Amino acid sequence: MKIAIVGCGVVGSSWSLVFARAGHDLAIYDRTPAAAEAALAFVSAADAALATRCRIATSLADALAGADYVQESAPERLPIKQALYREMDALLAPTTIVGSSTSGFPASVFTEGLANAARCLVAHPINPPHLIPLVELIPAPWTATETLDFTRELMAGVGQSPITLTREINGFVVNRLQSALLGEAFRLVEDGICTPAEVDAAVADGLGLRWCFMGPFATIDLNAANGVAEYCANLGPMYYGLAKEQADPREWTPELVSTIEAKMRADVPAEDLAARRKWRDGFLAAIVDAKRDITGKLGA
Amino acid sequence: MKIAIVGCGVVGSSWSLVFARAGHDLAIYDRTPAAAEAALAFVSAADAALATRCRIATSLADALAGADYVQESAPERLPIKQALYREMDALLAPTTIVGSSTSGFPASVFTEGLANAARCLVAHPINPPHLIPLVELIPAPWTATETLDFTRELMAGVGQSPITLTREINGFVVNRLQSALLGEAFRLVEDGICTPAEVDAAVADGLGLRWCFMGPFATIDLNAANGVAEYCANLGPMYYGLAKEQADPREWTPELVSTIEAKMRADVPAEDLAARRKWRDGFLAAIVDAKRDITGKLGA
Repeated sequence: MKIAIVGCGVVGSSWSLVFARAGHDLAIYDRTPAAAEAALAFVSAADAALATRCRIATSLADALAGADYVQESAPERLPIKQALYREMDALLAPTTIVGSSTSGFPASVFTEGLANAARCLVAHPINPPHLIPLVELIPAPWTATETLDFTRELMAGVGQSPITLTREINGFVVNRLQSALLGEAFRLVEDGICTPAEVDAAVADGLGLRWCFMGPFATIDLNAANGVAEYCANLGPMYYGLAKEQADPREWTPELVSTIEAKMRADVPAEDLAARRKWRDGFLAAIVDAKRDITGKLGA
Repeated sequence: MKIAIVGCGVVGSSWSLVFARAGHDLAIYDRTPAAAEAALAFVSAADAALATRCRIATSLADALAGADYVQESAPERLPIKQALYREMDALLAPTTIVGSSTSGFPASVFTEGLANAARCLVAHPINPPHLIPLVELIPAPWTATETLDFTRELMAGVGQSPITLTREINGFVVNRLQSALLGEAFRLVEDGICTPAEVDAAVADGLGLRWCFMGPFATIDLNAANGVAEYCANLGPMYYGLAKEQADPREWTPELVSTIEAKMRADVPAEDLAARRKWRDGFLAAIVDAKRDITGKLGA
């Protein structure tokens, strides 16, 4: 299949590797040619043989020509997205599907009124998609069912794990789940219950060890002898009580953020952040490999 | 050190292995002698050599005699805990520390007025503690600082990851974090945004892959070039908007629970739950091993 990568920052580069390693042919485009070159270099660094499947497109029209699917990863600023989609709309073949990597905008705000709007949707990855398989697909009200079906199959075919939201919602699913956890994390620190490092330990040495291979429903389903209904009967009232306490939205005040920043910088000084990011990427890659091996042995 | 295990269900048995494999001497007690025998068998099955460090106590008094630390894992019913702590109070040496595995009760409700109350606290594991290192330590208002310090050192010494709450709070930290995530998970399903399996994928194939080795603060700290303060400046308003939408506590209605139960049972029929639990334990053990290996190579 012919895939166009439009926008070659960290996300677009990672997407290039996802599609190239799955055997697709890529046209890679960025308004800044050096960014497209960097994306190609990123793919080649992972596997030099993949570069033969990739070409640098010389223009947006060149990138879109003959594309079956476009993964758009332009900067997260609405005027940029809107202008880009208007420009693409004049160039797209009537069969090309366009997925946006946006984490912040529903497709309706940058595809409304476009001739090709029915073939546009959000295909939001968790960064970096070449390591983290989850992709959430979010249709605009006018996105065609065929567009969703095509993109879901494409994503599953390249080894990603697509989920499909029924409609646009602020934060989509991933950031809503993260928001819920972060809200309580900040609340616990603000209320002096424990430190950020202790919240992190509660997740990394505790809850997260199951969550990396079972989601929250699968987890509670196995935590009562007869499954989730029994779990809810036993613990629903407790969780409802907690939910009422947690219905307490708070802004992250400058004072609270300063406190957290000071504690984080005590653990990882600012000059070590880049190295720490490399450590994270290495750890993440190793965990994903390990999970694949374990799944191969024990099943999913 | 001499450790008494009081209460030998799944949690007490797992605790027995934690302390025995760390080289401590165990007195294992349950009102039902067969349960204590089962805990000993669980330890032996993991490593037959460890059994030499364990003895079955013939009475509560026998279990507590000479104990430096008691890990209490009695059933989660308040009258049982209260009666047990009164009974222990008459038997404890004036130096013995008692940690309760309770997930639901603060120590203040079963230790108030006891002679030994200053040496009692909650030491709540995530089940099973021989695989999941996190333990949250929660003092009652009268728990002595020395009690907390002793238990924190003991837990770290046996390879657990202790966090210390400054005071009692409903749900402690772990279940408050889980509550926040579950609340949003149920809300997404109830509102028809996606299925339970899709929420599970969003975590297991997405967020959880980082959360198994980095907590939520460490995650966002590396998601902006200059750290958490920059992240909060950029995204704080977005998260505050989501938090306001999520300040919507809902009971888990019978209708919603039935819907979720039906979907979960379609994936894992009731007769397969026990086998699925074995799969989980095997996967969890393998992930914990893999994480240990990766940490050995890349650092924590």
